[in-house]
Amino acid sequence: MVSKALLPEFWTEILVPVCAVVGIVFSLFQWCIVSCVKLTADDDASSPTEDGKNGHEDYLMEEEEGVNDQSVVAKCAEIQTAISEGATSFLFTEYKYVGVFMVIFAAIIFLFLGSVQGFSTKSQPCTYDETRTCKPALATAVFSTISFVLGAVTSVLSGFLGMKIATYANARTTLEARRGVGKAFIVAFRSGAVMGFLLAANGLLVLYITINLFKIYYGDDWEGLFESITGYGLGGSSMALFGRVGGGIYTKAADVGADLVGKVERNIPEDDPRNPAVIADNVGDNVGDIAGMGSDLFGSYAESSCAALVVASISSFGINHDFTAMLFPLLISSMGILVCLVTTLFATDISEIKAVKEIEPALKNQLIISTVIMTAGIALVSWTGLPSSFTIYNFGAQKVVKNWELFLCVAVGLWAGLIIGFVTEYYTSNAYSPVQDVADSCRTGAATNVIFGLALGYKSVIIPIFAIAVSIFVSFSFAAMYGVAVAALGMLSTIATGLAIDAYGPISDNAGGIAEMAGMSHRIRERTDALDAAGNTTAAIGKGFAIGSAALVSLALFGAFVSRAGVETVDVLTPKVVIGLLVGAMLPYWFSAMTMKSVGSAALKMVEEVRRQFNTIPGLMEGTAKPDYATCVKISTDASIKEMIPPGCLVMLTPLIVGFFFGVETLSGVLAGSLISGVQIAISASNTGGAWDNAKKYIEAGASEHARSLGPKGSEPHKAAVIGDTIGDPLKDTSGPSLNILIKLMAVESLVFAPFFATHGGFLFKIFS
Amino acid sequence: MVSKALLPEFWTEILVPVCAVVGIVFSLFQWCIVSCVKLTADDDASSPTEDGKNGHEDYLMEEEEGVNDQSVVAKCAEIQTAISEGATSFLFTEYKYVGVFMVIFAAIIFLFLGSVQGFSTKSQPCTYDETRTCKPALATAVFSTISFVLGAVTSVLSGFLGMKIATYANARTTLEARRGVGKAFIVAFRSGAVMGFLLAANGLLVLYITINLFKIYYGDDWEGLFESITGYGLGGSSMALFGRVGGGIYTKAADVGADLVGKVERNIPEDDPRNPAVIADNVGDNVGDIAGMGSDLFGSYAESSCAALVVASISSFGINHDFTAMLFPLLISSMGILVCLVTTLFATDISEIKAVKEIEPALKNQLIISTVIMTAGIALVSWTGLPSSFTIYNFGAQKVVKNWELFLCVAVGLWAGLIIGFVTEYYTSNAYSPVQDVADSCRTGAATNVIFGLALGYKSVIIPIFAIAVSIFVSFSFAAMYGVAVAALGMLSTIATGLAIDAYGPISDNAGGIAEMAGMSHRIRERTDALDAAGNTTAAIGKGFAIGSAALVSLALFGAFVSRAGVETVDVLTPKVVIGLLVGAMLPYWFSAMTMKSVGSAALKMVEEVRRQFNTIPGLMEGTAKPDYATCVKISTDASIKEMIPPGCLVMLTPLIVGFFFGVETLSGVLAGSLISGVQIAISASNTGGAWDNAKKYIEAGASEHARSLGPKGSEPHKAAVIGDTIGDPLKDTSGPSLNILIKLMAVESLVFAPFFATHGGFLFKIFS
Repeated sequence: MVSKALLPEFWTEILVPVCAVVGIVFSLFQWCIVSCVKLTADDDASSPTEDGKNGHEDYLMEEEEGVNDQSVVAKCAEIQTAISEGATSFLFTEYKYVGVFMVIFAAIIFLFLGSVQGFSTKSQPCTYDETRTCKPALATAVFSTISFVLGAVTSVLSGFLGMKIATYANARTTLEARRGVGKAFIVAFRSGAVMGFLLAANGLLVLYITINLFKIYYGDDWEGLFESITGYGLGGSSMALFGRVGGGIYTKAADVGADLVGKVERNIPEDDPRNPAVIADNVGDNVGDIAGMGSDLFGSYAESSCAALVVASISSFGINHDFTAMLFPLLISSMGILVCLVTTLFATDISEIKAVKEIEPALKNQLIISTVIMTAGIALVSWTGLPSSFTIYNFGAQKVVKNWELFLCVAVGLWAGLIIGFVTEYYTSNAYSPVQDVADSCRTGAATNVIFGLALGYKSVIIPIFAIAVSIFVSFSFAAMYGVAVAALGMLSTIATGLAIDAYGPISDNAGGIAEMAGMSHRIRERTDALDAAGNTTAAIGKGFAIGSAALVSLALFGAFVSRAGVETVDVLTPKVVIGLLVGAMLPYWFSAMTMKSVGSAALKMVEEVRRQFNTIPGLMEGTAKPDYATCVKISTDASIKEMIPPGCLVMLTPLIVGFFFGVETLSGVLAGSLISGVQIAISASNTGGAWDNAKKYIEAGASEHARSLGPKGSEPHKAAVIGDTIGDPLKDTSGPSLNILIKLMAVESLVFAPFFATHGGFLFKIFS
Repeated sequence: MVSKALLPEFWTEILVPVCAVVGIVFSLFQWCIVSCVKLTADDDASSPTEDGKNGHEDYLMEEEEGVNDQSVVAKCAEIQTAISEGATSFLFTEYKYVGVFMVIFAAIIFLFLGSVQGFSTKSQPCTYDETRTCKPALATAVFSTISFVLGAVTSVLSGFLGMKIATYANARTTLEARRGVGKAFIVAFRSGAVMGFLLAANGLLVLYITINLFKIYYGDDWEGLFESITGYGLGGSSMALFGRVGGGIYTKAADVGADLVGKVERNIPEDDPRNPAVIADNVGDNVGDIAGMGSDLFGSYAESSCAALVVASISSFGINHDFTAMLFPLLISSMGILVCLVTTLFATDISEIKAVKEIEPALKNQLIISTVIMTAGIALVSWTGLPSSFTIYNFGAQKVVKNWELFLCVAVGLWAGLIIGFVTEYYTSNAYSPVQDVADSCRTGAATNVIFGLALGYKSVIIPIFAIAVSIFVSFSFAAMYGVAVAALGMLSTIATGLAIDAYGPISDNAGGIAEMAGMSHRIRERTDALDAAGNTTAAIGKGFAIGSAALVSLALFGAFVSRAGVETVDVLTPKVVIGLLVGAMLPYWFSAMTMKSVGSAALKMVEEVRRQFNTIPGLMEGTAKPDYATCVKISTDASIKEMIPPGCLVMLTPLIVGFFFGVETLSGVLAGSLISGVQIAISASNTGGAWDNAKKYIEAGASEHARSLGPKGSEPHKAAVIGDTIGDPLKDTSGPSLNILIKLMAVESLVFAPFFATHGGFLFKIFS
């Protein structure tokens, strides 16, 4: 009765790894192009005075005159090295602490899951089909632990590689900015693409290999196989949490501290080399926005794949052992890599940026193009990779689904992502009235700026929530939790492009910093600032995607958890669930309070140190003495390592404590509550922060009559805008983006521990009843 | 099998109105004492120069010398009249618009509910017990409409009376402040008590009379009777919404506008008579904080009574026609009036305030004393007013409950209120470290102040949510939705004391304003400032109570709605519910965005007008010319009337639209989502604002070494604190407190329209399926 997919299993086994390898090769190819921009003074020292071409066919100096000086290149290289070394050293420190956590948590997973059947090595009846025999719970414990470690290592690797690429690209972007804004854009964008493709392809490849290796042991027990695979998502996400929180505190402590003394008190420009916190600030962009975001999106990708796989394994795909249909989530991601590859060519080869105002449309076009092509791609995959009709597990029952219905599920997620991206752009780009209104409110001071900014953030939640609600409704109605999981995958299918335009922002930001520090001309800085303003918007868009997909992913994981834990309904009208909802909805506030306070305290320390250096180092303000960058780097490092532990524990321990003491019903409530509350705070925090940042840039750029009436730099409205920007920093770069990890991570952790909770959970209620 | 209550029906019929009348008499008695402080210069003109006693036995001037001048009294009286007239005129304008709404909405209620059975006048089988015959749906339509109008009128009256009392008391507080801080405190507190007792007793009396009148028609059909009574709650709450939003926008537009130009730009003190917005600002305190809050808490009281009554009517109380047990909610309120009466005597007669530092403990003791005595009161009422065992309707089943279990339900609500009050005090009083930390963060400027303040607000959510969660769990587990409703009533049982200490705040604030405007000495202002600082904390405590009770009330209403609409489970794992949850959780953000933007825009207009007056009226800064107060009053009035409509529509229309188009499951999700999300935002907004306000007052008062290191007024940290205070204004007085009305109102509206939705709801899904 149930048909098989058109695509034979053999071809699936070939296609997935081939696409992953194509992604990696493409990424390396982009990297080669970026590396053509030479940074080493030695390399040029042999011939530069002869041709002055700096590794390119045409002269670098065609637009900028009088900077025909190799000492600038050397200076850029020197700064880049400092940033790269700072970032590497921080990440290694972070990974040392996180490594300890990883070992402890791996042990917890093994012990908790192993205890489900008292570490018995005997096979057992399957959870969903008791007539069949599955591998023992001990096997799940062992393989979950292995996949947890694999996910964690892949996540760390993703963040680290991203950081390396970004710190490789930033000075090159600065140098290319001398040749024009278009050339600089291409370098920054290509570097973003290196990161995007490397991460997407790497995540896919590791997952694919893991599945095939685990299959050797599990054989036909796909239920157990894919239950173990969920550890991969947990590993990815838990590393992402520490990356986001630690990196976020690092970057914002340095940023806020540098701005408060430098810009507000001393009236020196951003990224001025006299500011002792300037290196820490630039390091922060790479460890927070790049490494943190890389880990985060990798986590989302891993989790949505795992959620789809675990639901599929107990649906007809798993029951009939239809491997192609089973790997449908991976086929979607493979197709995504190919589509993004084509999309990238539109930005790098087909069109060319000539003016500042073309930057934002070019980035926006990337989103549109990838979404349009991907829609066709999904149709192709759904048609070939799925049986025309199949059944999906739906909380105890099996639901019949047609392949075109599943196509709609993936597509609705994809297009909801585009809508969220556009709305985010509307609310955070200074080309539209919302940000201009916020800038205008600076006329009456910082207070109105903050009031308008907060209101803007709250308002920007409306349409994304409707978009998410519609995609949930459509995908849930068609294909239950599997539908929601593939909708999340749909939203993340263009992750390579999303990461490319997202990583482009911090790279441009750093490029501007390097230009300032290397003492390059005013015009270079203006160009990098223009790139950076677009980068703020793309960063907000990237966060919008991350949050939207996190909402879908965690709902799917939640559904999988509920199924696995044997909960039949999560009825709001029961006391256990309703208190879970209420407390769950509170967790994002608790978490935000912790992270914001951490940034505030760390920034206060940074401010004191920067003030101390300005007051005690003679000649610092005059530029004759060098500041002590290392102490500021150390303050950021120490603060972020110390402060990432409490919020990390809050997120990691809550599911364990609630599940063990209060049981799976309350835990379901907590997961649902934190999901529906966290998504709102995350969107509003990230958009408020983005809008404040761009309102400030709007006044600084003075590109319109209205903007000039508010400026110039140093005017009262500009000072008010700087205050808003500073407040927005922890909102948009620390607490906001960490929240989507909070909701996903608690869900995936509950899913991994579901067998344990189902057996030993609800300790307190068991005592009292 | 089921026993009756100890207290005979006859005594219940006597006791409830007697307690209400006692409350009213006590309130009038307090009013008489306050009115002993004479304001009329005429009255005194006959004899003041002879005895100079100003209506008291001892001289007013015992502490303050050289102000033995009746012109000050005349001036105070003049300012008071101006404030009172401004407030009256605004409220009449507001009521005109609200009256139109009331008529339209009354028509909607009648039409929608009447259409349930096609306006048939024939009796019908009862909803919950089909073997019996109930009054026709048309009767429910008629009586719901009547009780809606009654509730609305009572609410309007409550707000209006509160405003009248407050504007009667403020100048009297100023004058008494000349005799010392203790005397001023007593006047302000007594006036608060006038309002508290009048509102509590009035609400009880009207509800009691309504029930008895409706009973004449309904006879034994208690199900229909109490279903109609829910209109009373809807009427009360919908007026409260407009009162809170309109008043909130009014007061904060004036406050923010006055501060931004006066304090920040012109460097003149708060409430300086040269500031053109000063009268509008003082009017605002009375229409927003007093009238708005009065309507709000009356609404909560009416709704929790209605929720308890409607659930009781379909439980054994209603089925067995046990009138005493049926009126248990009203007995609790009656007891509350007596308990609060005793409590008030502790503050007014038993102890006396002699120093500033005794104010806060005195207010805190009020909370503790009333809670302790009330616990005994509840025990008494539960023992005499309830059968020892009875059954409660629990979503289709009947649950057996003991009377001591119900005692615990009420008590847990009462004590949760106290905990919420204490936590709020801890986070908003400048006697504790959280506010001091926020004040300290002003050293590094406004940005860190805002970051720390937001973090404080987020953190302050944690314990109140746990307190609410515990009371829900206990009361829900013992007695289902009836338990939750009486827990809410327990929290509100000391409403008279709560309102007294809450109203005390704005009265003191106004008293300070009058002292400043009347040109009274520095010392008077210091005393009123001390009263006001305690008032900020009590206001925050009052808001904490309002929010906590709103959470319980709306859960109970939600439960009643679900029962009445015939929904069996509200399962998070269905697409209809989950999208409802998500969208519901978004509504508070949408609502806050509207109200905050409204305050911001109105404040901008106010700023422009104030600036214009300072620039164009010669001699204004020097104090030789009078500003044009009327224009500023008009700006606030126009803005608040115009801007209260969109948020009002959002709240009033959402349940109708969702219920009609998407049906009761989605509406259930929306109600639950807005409840669990709104309660968090409301608490954090109100505490953040309170903390900023008191951090500013902490620096200004300079009472400790630490505080002095941040001050004095005009220092950089103080300026940063003023910015925080201004941002907090709309958070704590407009959007925050309106949110609890949002969650209650949507729930009670859904309950009233439940018969309509059950019949005609889910239009969209009916079309597509």
